[in-house]
Amino acid sequence: MTGAPSSTVRLAPEPLTAAAFAPFGQVIEAAHGQSYLINGGRTRRFHALAAADCGADGEPVLSIFRGTPWPQPVRIAMLERHPLGSQAFVPMERLPWLAVVAERPQPEACRAFLVRGDQGLQIARGVWHHPLLALAPVQDFLVVDRRGPGENLEEHHFPATVEVLVDPV
Amino acid sequence: MTGAPSSTVRLAPEPLTAAAFAPFGQVIEAAHGQSYLINGGRTRRFHALAAADCGADGEPVLSIFRGTPWPQPVRIAMLERHPLGSQAFVPMERLPWLAVVAERPQPEACRAFLVRGDQGLQIARGVWHHPLLALAPVQDFLVVDRRGPGENLEEHHFPATVEVLVDPV
Repeated sequence: MTGAPSSTVRLAPEPLTAAAFAPFGQVIEAAHGQSYLINGGRTRRFHALAAADCGADGEPVLSIFRGTPWPQPVRIAMLERHPLGSQAFVPMERLPWLAVVAERPQPEACRAFLVRGDQGLQIARGVWHHPLLALAPVQDFLVVDRRGPGENLEEHHFPATVEVLVDPV
Repeated sequence: MTGAPSSTVRLAPEPLTAAAFAPFGQVIEAAHGQSYLINGGRTRRFHALAAADCGADGEPVLSIFRGTPWPQPVRIAMLERHPLGSQAFVPMERLPWLAVVAERPQPEACRAFLVRGDQGLQIARGVWHHPLLALAPVQDFLVVDRRGPGENLEEHHFPATVEVLVDPV
């Protein structure tokens, strides 16, 4: 008697660009979008790179997520999504990190992005993603997401026989 | 004929603590507040350190402010406030910065805080404050504030004969 055959999906991290990430949300970085000088010319505002989406009954809250790294190479076994609101992650130090997102909760649909330390991401409402993947021993992110009534977390676990392996970065 | 006498108000920057800043808003830092582990223990969430306040007709947007320093010693001549929404500033690098806030738009009411590089601030709706005071040559902040109808900026300029001098930090 043998078990079911197991399979491994390999993901090579892609560089993060606004165009590549568009199906999943917004890139929060100073390199694109409309910007203009304010404060007598001493500050440049890169305006409204993302708008928090918290629904009519939710409110946006600011939290800090302190991440510790997944072991390398990164193996992931599940995805989650927030059906009631967006969730933004912005590094509080210039350390690169990793994001895994998917249009469908299937191993073959996963895409990995290597995110620079000066880039944040807003994951759109309802988009499947893996929880925070820090790469450095201690890595703080400002998170803007929704507080409010209702169940705002769905999880999807892959079959035990499927392994998603993110190539080392 | 002589001009009006001029005066200088000197401000010594105080260290930033949640208690000292309470009349003006919230400190966004990982050192206080309710925190708990998520993501299978790999992430600690310091939850809801601030809630964005955008009113019924506004929406919260995420922008990046790229600041350049005021000359040292810092001389300020005005304050501003946002009557329709809160405004949060969170450093994207671990570089200290300076905040000036006031309960009334008067030179004598100003208080200066030296903010550590791992601390952000949310300035509450309607609180008088000076525009961003960066200390390093180029300093990026994530800003969460309100977009929506109405005039969300009031400025108050001090009399030309009054100088507010923030002691060097």
